[in-house]
Amino acid sequence: MRKRKQNSAKLKVIPLGGLDRIGMNMTAFQFGDSIIVVDCGLAFPENDMLGIDFVIPDISFLKENESKIKGFVITHGHEDHIGAVPYVFKELKTTIYSTRLTMALIERKLEEHGMMKTVKRRVIKYGQTITLGDFRVEFIKTNHSIQDAAALAINTPAGTVIHTGDFKVDYTPVYGDAIDLQRFAELGKKGVLALMCDSTNAERPGFTMSEKTVGAAFDRIFTENKRNRLIIATFASNVDRVQQVINMAVKHKRKVCLEGRSMTSVIGAAIELGYIDDSQHTVITLDELDNYPPEKVVLVTTGSQGEAMAALSRMAANIHKKVKIMPGDVVVFSSHPIPGNEKAVSNVVNELYEIGARVVLQDTHVSGHACQEDIKLIYALTAPKYTIPVHGERRHLQAQADLAASLGMSRKNILMLHNGDVLELNDKKAQITGKVPAGGILVDGLGVGDVGQVVIRDRQKLSEEGIMVVVMTLEKATGELIAGPEIVSRGFVYIKEAEALLDEADDVAAEAVDYCLRRGIHDWSKIKNTVKEDLSEFIWKKTKRRPMILPIILEA
Amino acid sequence: MRKRKQNSAKLKVIPLGGLDRIGMNMTAFQFGDSIIVVDCGLAFPENDMLGIDFVIPDISFLKENESKIKGFVITHGHEDHIGAVPYVFKELKTTIYSTRLTMALIERKLEEHGMMKTVKRRVIKYGQTITLGDFRVEFIKTNHSIQDAAALAINTPAGTVIHTGDFKVDYTPVYGDAIDLQRFAELGKKGVLALMCDSTNAERPGFTMSEKTVGAAFDRIFTENKRNRLIIATFASNVDRVQQVINMAVKHKRKVCLEGRSMTSVIGAAIELGYIDDSQHTVITLDELDNYPPEKVVLVTTGSQGEAMAALSRMAANIHKKVKIMPGDVVVFSSHPIPGNEKAVSNVVNELYEIGARVVLQDTHVSGHACQEDIKLIYALTAPKYTIPVHGERRHLQAQADLAASLGMSRKNILMLHNGDVLELNDKKAQITGKVPAGGILVDGLGVGDVGQVVIRDRQKLSEEGIMVVVMTLEKATGELIAGPEIVSRGFVYIKEAEALLDEADDVAAEAVDYCLRRGIHDWSKIKNTVKEDLSEFIWKKTKRRPMILPIILEA
Repeated sequence: MRKRKQNSAKLKVIPLGGLDRIGMNMTAFQFGDSIIVVDCGLAFPENDMLGIDFVIPDISFLKENESKIKGFVITHGHEDHIGAVPYVFKELKTTIYSTRLTMALIERKLEEHGMMKTVKRRVIKYGQTITLGDFRVEFIKTNHSIQDAAALAINTPAGTVIHTGDFKVDYTPVYGDAIDLQRFAELGKKGVLALMCDSTNAERPGFTMSEKTVGAAFDRIFTENKRNRLIIATFASNVDRVQQVINMAVKHKRKVCLEGRSMTSVIGAAIELGYIDDSQHTVITLDELDNYPPEKVVLVTTGSQGEAMAALSRMAANIHKKVKIMPGDVVVFSSHPIPGNEKAVSNVVNELYEIGARVVLQDTHVSGHACQEDIKLIYALTAPKYTIPVHGERRHLQAQADLAASLGMSRKNILMLHNGDVLELNDKKAQITGKVPAGGILVDGLGVGDVGQVVIRDRQKLSEEGIMVVVMTLEKATGELIAGPEIVSRGFVYIKEAEALLDEADDVAAEAVDYCLRRGIHDWSKIKNTVKEDLSEFIWKKTKRRPMILPIILEA
Repeated sequence: MRKRKQNSAKLKVIPLGGLDRIGMNMTAFQFGDSIIVVDCGLAFPENDMLGIDFVIPDISFLKENESKIKGFVITHGHEDHIGAVPYVFKELKTTIYSTRLTMALIERKLEEHGMMKTVKRRVIKYGQTITLGDFRVEFIKTNHSIQDAAALAINTPAGTVIHTGDFKVDYTPVYGDAIDLQRFAELGKKGVLALMCDSTNAERPGFTMSEKTVGAAFDRIFTENKRNRLIIATFASNVDRVQQVINMAVKHKRKVCLEGRSMTSVIGAAIELGYIDDSQHTVITLDELDNYPPEKVVLVTTGSQGEAMAALSRMAANIHKKVKIMPGDVVVFSSHPIPGNEKAVSNVVNELYEIGARVVLQDTHVSGHACQEDIKLIYALTAPKYTIPVHGERRHLQAQADLAASLGMSRKNILMLHNGDVLELNDKKAQITGKVPAGGILVDGLGVGDVGQVVIRDRQKLSEEGIMVVVMTLEKATGELIAGPEIVSRGFVYIKEAEALLDEADDVAAEAVDYCLRRGIHDWSKIKNTVKEDLSEFIWKKTKRRPMILPIILEA
């Protein structure tokens, strides 16, 4: 048997994303000449990545080893697992394997990018195993805040790795079956080399509540607000949540109107594929909204994170084209703010109260990620030799590592990796043996990777104190000043009220130029530096601010 | 009696800050020709106020009525209640009244601004009443996360207003007495016209825990980490918290080292004034730190909010001059992240874990603000005719309004104000009768109010996509192009990798200028507009970005 023969050979696990920060999930597995990749996600930009739309993984390693790649296996259809597909598959030719809803969501992206014909795809069912070179990958049913989420059992000659993907344990899911705990146990019984388990909620004690508990809260809200319009904000991708709103609407005889681009698109796809049951034709379009009295409808909208351009934010700011918040409306946030969005959410809540709406923030959301006791369950069932905590910032990975240790795992078998680490392991040994390029590639508009640290630093500086441009024209031959210097500023000070200051600054610049020219300095970079330094000092003294100062010399 | 005679006269309550957002607390009270002002705070900038240091209230109303002002009464020594003092007292001549520690903290500010000689001050004791024109103001003992916090009973001919300031109910405070609930009850028995109560925690059910519970958590942490250095991050102004660290250090035989500019300054003042008991000489200086083994010291540091330049952040980033985090160090966050700071705190936590420190985030902080049941207690004791929820964003004020209604208060007696509203009230009637200027004045470096919406919008635009400056020189008489157009960009794209794009942009600009000049257009603003439009369109088409485009024409 091949497996026996290569038993001393090692599996390489190479995370290209998913560690160090939330999102951008992507991990390469290499055995011999076979590479498979799990997930292909994007990350949303950090606060200091000004103007950046999102971040995708660095795939230099994959490009260099393209011939070895046997396929991409995707665990579920969230942006942090599929969002980089259009960018990555412009550079790599290989096949995507995923469950059905996941594939439908990937296909929405491929269509947008006109890539439906160029990317090979195969839909896989739970329980099915695919052979990809030296790998055999089995898809295992899990629960998450989107349907069709899968864990992966990655069988290699060096042993089996279980990758949970994002998951929770839900014994009473809204749609479909509970997580296939029996299969985790069966694999555990046979022997698991390594577990790669979701760390998102590893800091949270206890168990994650079932999605169905949100249904009970909705029922109460519908019952208590029979005379009011209901507006429920949640993630577009939370298909089960929307199903629960539809169920309650049927029960309480309301119509459901979906609003927000991603909401109509994702939920539309889910209805089409049968992942949402709207057999009572409860869902109406925005245009039909006016046919029903307010107390007979419930709006389901994007914007639960306070995103400035999302439907709910536009309603709250009274700039939504079709929906106007009215006093008495009950707005339900069926979500928790993602860290970093708290303030934006709060602003929307304040605006809603200001208009006279009531806002419900409590008991209307459960997480899609396993908490500590659920994570312990997976460890107990799979009994892995090694564990590699994944999906999270360092603090989350560390929390899972501490959990694993509390279960009796030896610290040396708890492998804390960084993106780009090359981990080699078999049942004898596990060690980091190398490093491949890894890190976020910034996407800004159409530009992929053309905005780097220099540009970001400039944007940070510009955002703090603005810019002063100092322009002058010098005669090419003689170096004589024939126009300027003139100062134009933006984002520095309100010009009409700071004329005196800017006049003085003009003088400082003129003197600096004059000083250089009188001393016969014709090296333009020297002139620029002198202007910059003198002006910088003057402005700091006068204002304690440091705008970017940009001298430009034209030659005539 | 004057009171009887003017009974139909009305008291004006004019909030100049403290509503609509957190911070910037300041409220004017006017009766006839007497005005008093409660608090003089600043607010920290919102996320979209790029480059702004802080925000202070608009005091136009006070400047116009300066002759009527009888004094400023300050409830406690936090920045959001005293931070605007140096700015306001440059413009107004009047007296500050406050308790002792509050005054000491105000004086630190006045000293920094060289204003100790120009601002009149008077220290008041709990229970003492001062007469300010038609007002008699009594200082009542409360509890808060800083000592010497006071509520105010503002007696006027129209009735008594109770302003709680920031407060909590702590039956077992670390220093001094519990809140004087008897006095609240006594005033309530006599009749309270209006209550102005802290709303900060009005959304939180239950009671706020005593500061002493944190001491118990500290005891456990000291006990469990006998071999490790302890680093405790908290607010510099949380004097009682630092006292508890000192108490635990005495018990567990460690030395306490304070680090961070505001920490050493505030706690230094508190020790000097006797608000901190260091009779065992437990506090050592940073220079003495090396004289003790790590397990014999506890560092108390600023930076609990992840502020980039604070001591803890510098330690975590390994750029602190004297303290290096070591594996095994135990870092305790004795604070909760203020909304908006979650991400920054998380970054520091991740860095600490990365170095190998352990981080403790749970059970190590209690709030300084009253929760719902405490607020209800104050309502029950004071039984006010009207209530004016203060201190908070709309959502917090609304939560208190809902609490008041749940206690049986009529909605028409629950007065929801905005900054700048002029509320007139007596025991017959309360209504908003006018509006005075109110709103944040932005402070950026030395500039107070010179950065307004135009500048902020420019900074936002610059931060998103940077700037392209297009410079050219035209001959004054003939309008002939004698230099340029030349494009210089910052924060837009990494120039070395985008040469082709920028070359093309040069051509677009040149063509636009050429087009204008050939058609005999010499109106420079028209030329600028043409260049701007053409370049904008070109850049959008090529990159889907919208940098600020700034054409500058020099005349030779």
